[in-house]
Amino acid sequence: MSFDSTIHAKAIELTKLAYEMTAAAGSGHPTSAASLSHIVSVLMYKHMRYEPANPDHPSSDRLVLSEGHAVPIIYAACADLGVHIGKPGAARAMTREDAMTLRAIGSVVDGHPNPVEGFPFFDTATGSLGQGLSHAAGLACAARLDGLDKRVFCIIGDGESREGQIWEAIDFIKDHDLKAVCPIFNANVYAQSAKVSPQQSPDTLAAKLEAAGFVVALIDGHNPTAVSDALSLHAQHQHDPKAAPLAIVAKTIKGWGSASQQGDGHHGKPAEGDELNKALEELDATARFFGATADTPLKISLMSPKKPDAPKVEPAMTFPEAMAKFGQQKALDKGKYATRRAYGIALRALGHARSDVVALDADVSNSTFAETFYKDAALKERYFECRIAEQNMFSTAAGLSAGGKIPFCSTFAKFAVRGYDQIEMAVNSGANFKIAGSHAGISLAADGPSQMSLPDVAWFRSFATIQRPGGERGFFILQPSDAYQAYALTLAMAEYNGPVYMRTLRPDTEFLYSEENNFTLGGFEVLTPGRDLLIVASGYMVHEANKAIEKLDAQGIDATLVDLYSLPFDGEALLDLANENNGNILTIEDNYGGGFGSAVADVAAADGSGFTVQQMHVTRLPKSGRSTDDLMTYCGLSSAHIVQRAMAMLELSPA
Amino acid sequence: MSFDSTIHAKAIELTKLAYEMTAAAGSGHPTSAASLSHIVSVLMYKHMRYEPANPDHPSSDRLVLSEGHAVPIIYAACADLGVHIGKPGAARAMTREDAMTLRAIGSVVDGHPNPVEGFPFFDTATGSLGQGLSHAAGLACAARLDGLDKRVFCIIGDGESREGQIWEAIDFIKDHDLKAVCPIFNANVYAQSAKVSPQQSPDTLAAKLEAAGFVVALIDGHNPTAVSDALSLHAQHQHDPKAAPLAIVAKTIKGWGSASQQGDGHHGKPAEGDELNKALEELDATARFFGATADTPLKISLMSPKKPDAPKVEPAMTFPEAMAKFGQQKALDKGKYATRRAYGIALRALGHARSDVVALDADVSNSTFAETFYKDAALKERYFECRIAEQNMFSTAAGLSAGGKIPFCSTFAKFAVRGYDQIEMAVNSGANFKIAGSHAGISLAADGPSQMSLPDVAWFRSFATIQRPGGERGFFILQPSDAYQAYALTLAMAEYNGPVYMRTLRPDTEFLYSEENNFTLGGFEVLTPGRDLLIVASGYMVHEANKAIEKLDAQGIDATLVDLYSLPFDGEALLDLANENNGNILTIEDNYGGGFGSAVADVAAADGSGFTVQQMHVTRLPKSGRSTDDLMTYCGLSSAHIVQRAMAMLELSPA
Repeated sequence: MSFDSTIHAKAIELTKLAYEMTAAAGSGHPTSAASLSHIVSVLMYKHMRYEPANPDHPSSDRLVLSEGHAVPIIYAACADLGVHIGKPGAARAMTREDAMTLRAIGSVVDGHPNPVEGFPFFDTATGSLGQGLSHAAGLACAARLDGLDKRVFCIIGDGESREGQIWEAIDFIKDHDLKAVCPIFNANVYAQSAKVSPQQSPDTLAAKLEAAGFVVALIDGHNPTAVSDALSLHAQHQHDPKAAPLAIVAKTIKGWGSASQQGDGHHGKPAEGDELNKALEELDATARFFGATADTPLKISLMSPKKPDAPKVEPAMTFPEAMAKFGQQKALDKGKYATRRAYGIALRALGHARSDVVALDADVSNSTFAETFYKDAALKERYFECRIAEQNMFSTAAGLSAGGKIPFCSTFAKFAVRGYDQIEMAVNSGANFKIAGSHAGISLAADGPSQMSLPDVAWFRSFATIQRPGGERGFFILQPSDAYQAYALTLAMAEYNGPVYMRTLRPDTEFLYSEENNFTLGGFEVLTPGRDLLIVASGYMVHEANKAIEKLDAQGIDATLVDLYSLPFDGEALLDLANENNGNILTIEDNYGGGFGSAVADVAAADGSGFTVQQMHVTRLPKSGRSTDDLMTYCGLSSAHIVQRAMAMLELSPA
Repeated sequence: MSFDSTIHAKAIELTKLAYEMTAAAGSGHPTSAASLSHIVSVLMYKHMRYEPANPDHPSSDRLVLSEGHAVPIIYAACADLGVHIGKPGAARAMTREDAMTLRAIGSVVDGHPNPVEGFPFFDTATGSLGQGLSHAAGLACAARLDGLDKRVFCIIGDGESREGQIWEAIDFIKDHDLKAVCPIFNANVYAQSAKVSPQQSPDTLAAKLEAAGFVVALIDGHNPTAVSDALSLHAQHQHDPKAAPLAIVAKTIKGWGSASQQGDGHHGKPAEGDELNKALEELDATARFFGATADTPLKISLMSPKKPDAPKVEPAMTFPEAMAKFGQQKALDKGKYATRRAYGIALRALGHARSDVVALDADVSNSTFAETFYKDAALKERYFECRIAEQNMFSTAAGLSAGGKIPFCSTFAKFAVRGYDQIEMAVNSGANFKIAGSHAGISLAADGPSQMSLPDVAWFRSFATIQRPGGERGFFILQPSDAYQAYALTLAMAEYNGPVYMRTLRPDTEFLYSEENNFTLGGFEVLTPGRDLLIVASGYMVHEANKAIEKLDAQGIDATLVDLYSLPFDGEALLDLANENNGNILTIEDNYGGGFGSAVADVAAADGSGFTVQQMHVTRLPKSGRSTDDLMTYCGLSSAHIVQRAMAMLELSPA
């Protein structure tokens, strides 16, 4: 009678179910699951503090399965333990029958961890590799802010640890002393196409972790006592202020317990028919070999019932109030102010109005103006400096969101692309997060194309064409043209429960609005009413278009100017305006195509009443120029170009 | 009289010019430049083997400046040495006056390294951080294939080394024993917003590199002899088959030589007016302090004049020939074959036809079928396994392209997003590279959304809206629907000099074509002619649409079916077809919006003659399903849905 024999029995029982459910699904990763059978058993039946009937309790320990494909082993444990699954309000204990619905279209038991389909035991969607450790870091940041004594276990594959993001997360955990995170590297030797590189061997992983300042427990991942001791050691480190963070490197066997499933060629292949029977028989033999018997009671550790306080949510100051309060009155009086600066002011005002708002930046806070937030002593602890590592920043934000915070991430819009996969997985996780991409488009000029965001509108817009499970849009894309608008929209971002991307601009831009204007996600603003041509511009281009409108007016052309600051937008209302302008629409944006203009074309073409949509956008690789005007001319987007294009569209020659 | 005093003099001379050119530009990074002054002097005046009049000679050593913002120091050296600049055919020696045009719109001296604007000393565009070491690795891979004894120096910032991609590249260099690469970490302590993290201190960097299997030379980066000795040591390691790769970690001072420019707050800010004068005076004083005198002749090392042989380029086999030759005759006879498999066959055939074709994959070669290439003994040495690290893969491909190869990179289409920034920088570099993203869209079904590429078409399409400097499109996006097409288009990818993204499918799809069909980048294919409605489908959706066409035919509706396998495409020809179909267009794709349908809407809306374009695409987060049909139904894209939508569009009710 021993802990070891009991865990062996449990591990084998769960592994058998993992084989059976993947066989039923006709796909999946039972051998990866088998390599985790002891680690998951020791974790979920002993060390993790949680309650199966309340799997997303905010005080419970969390388990992030970064190598999401190994999920059948966790499903097996959840089915055994009756962890609750299902949409909110319809939760019920998971059964073995549920496990057997793995990957079926009507099942919440998805192919990879997927909380939004009804599996609240998981905080985030994983399966695109390398992201889970950052999710775990974000969960730990949120727990610390809430004063929760929570542990966040994260299981990472050895092959997966080739992803640079893992090492970004390791540095972040060390920088922020997030010892609540327990990284567990599952060194099962085999990746998908071959053995892992020697660069990802247990010894090399351990050496890399030690070089990064971690203490490493290098263990046999199939030895129950060794696993349990390592997890206990982690708890000690967590609570010792002087201790280094601890990571576990567990040597495991892919396909543990069934010799016929081991070695090359078994990644992601369910055993079916005779092969399945053989694997199950081998597992039974392994049980006999180890004397595996469930002869010791396993008792789940319960979490503290304490829940964090509800966040403070109050109305934020107005823009002029905030500018005055934060020492920017003079700047306000000048009548021009960069939207990136207004973002910083709004973020700081939000920080004071809402205790759930947190900010992250990747070493450019003095460019994005996230520094306005962290330099405020009252807000500093809610700021997370991510250094030059955008992937980790966005995934950490997903974790913070799962921990009940509203993260605002900022970097250059160009560098946000570094984390598009992480952003997509955050969307898939149902995360409520915000992105401010500064220096959008070509108006930054001098630094050149390596710092310019050009295909970003197209990418984010693609998400705006879908609805998330709650019916919200997949993304809102905002691009304010002036500081009042930027301020108001930043506040609106916090109020909306879902992902929003705001593009802010480097140059100061003249005020077009006041605090009287009302801006909403999904809105647009008519700046100049007209009747000959509808010009639809966004961001910096609103200002060029404004100049063009004057020149057109001098030529007797009465053009309407719309500031399209949001995608998606009210298409019907825009087409009504177009109808008042003979159906002529000219769109203008300083990024590559597929963005704002294309969104307008989508709406117009779907209507089919003969609108004409011509698009002006960047059509060549930009380069450096010393002024914004240089770039506008180089890219054919100056007010003169707009006038020329408008005249051509109306089949007029310049007077 | 000494080497040291001479290098000090040169370093100070170059630093002064760096200050002056950034002052003239009104922006730039002189202090980062100053931190590299000795390293660049020792490199470019002594160790690098190259010829200033021939800066892109294929046998010359290469210098990749991963921290691109420090480029003024290299511009200063190039101006001093008369390195040739300018577009091909109009090259001339760079002058001090050229340097003073830094960042001007008409200048080839761009804000960050930018070869396409006319600076062939650089192989790749950098400035988005963390990518250069992978470029260097790619250059070294190409040199090895060509039998060139080339060194590839790569300068990386300490702050920049937080990017996980640097560590992906380090692992790749170690895996492939690319000792020709000499990584030089410039540890100047200050990043943009603050000091670098202790995780990026010189000692921690050295420990991390040693953990990854490198030997580290930890030196004073302002000691000329120490720099030179470290570079000599690298040459020894390079040519010793038993030696480990060597990396240099150089402790440097940001703003070296001018005390007033050191410390926090000087990142990316030129010194102007009095501040400039002060900096220059301090540099003169520093010169006196060090007894800096150009009293020892500095002699550039010349490269070998040997050029690699021209690649073999022969016509490739036909698809049936290749299938027969590569043991796939039975599969061919079945009449269905996955496009991803056809890609693998084509890649192998291409490998035999062209010696410049190389292949890379990120541990999924048995899913993308890149394994068909590397399992061929004759091609194996041209295959580069990148493990689970997509960022490094795409940047390595940019380096291989700069080295004269045609890299084909494959991974799941979903995971290609991991490298979008790297792909964009490769476009900015003018690279000729190809991407095969497998498991595109939702047809893969069982694995669920973490493995599905959904906003990818929108992103790549954004590049298709621009022209590259040579007039070519920024990107071609291909999505074959059958194996014949996939094979032909893979061959066409190799013939086209520019970036191409091909989406391949997981499931076997029925043959629609034969070897008689001709497919071109920019083309589309009319599968069924009709007159009531133009259905435009792509990839897997061509097959669903085909079923729908039959059902519509049964209802008396005569629809045209176009297989839109390329973006961009001939818009005029498509609108001609639409005109023959009453102007009604229904587009169908199994990804998020902003993709194929939006491209059609762009064309139709620009025309303005009243076409109606309705789009069917994925409009919700997908989930796992056990069959492709499950997913098609779940996402409203089954043939039944298509019929329903077509009927509604024609305002008909089902019979």
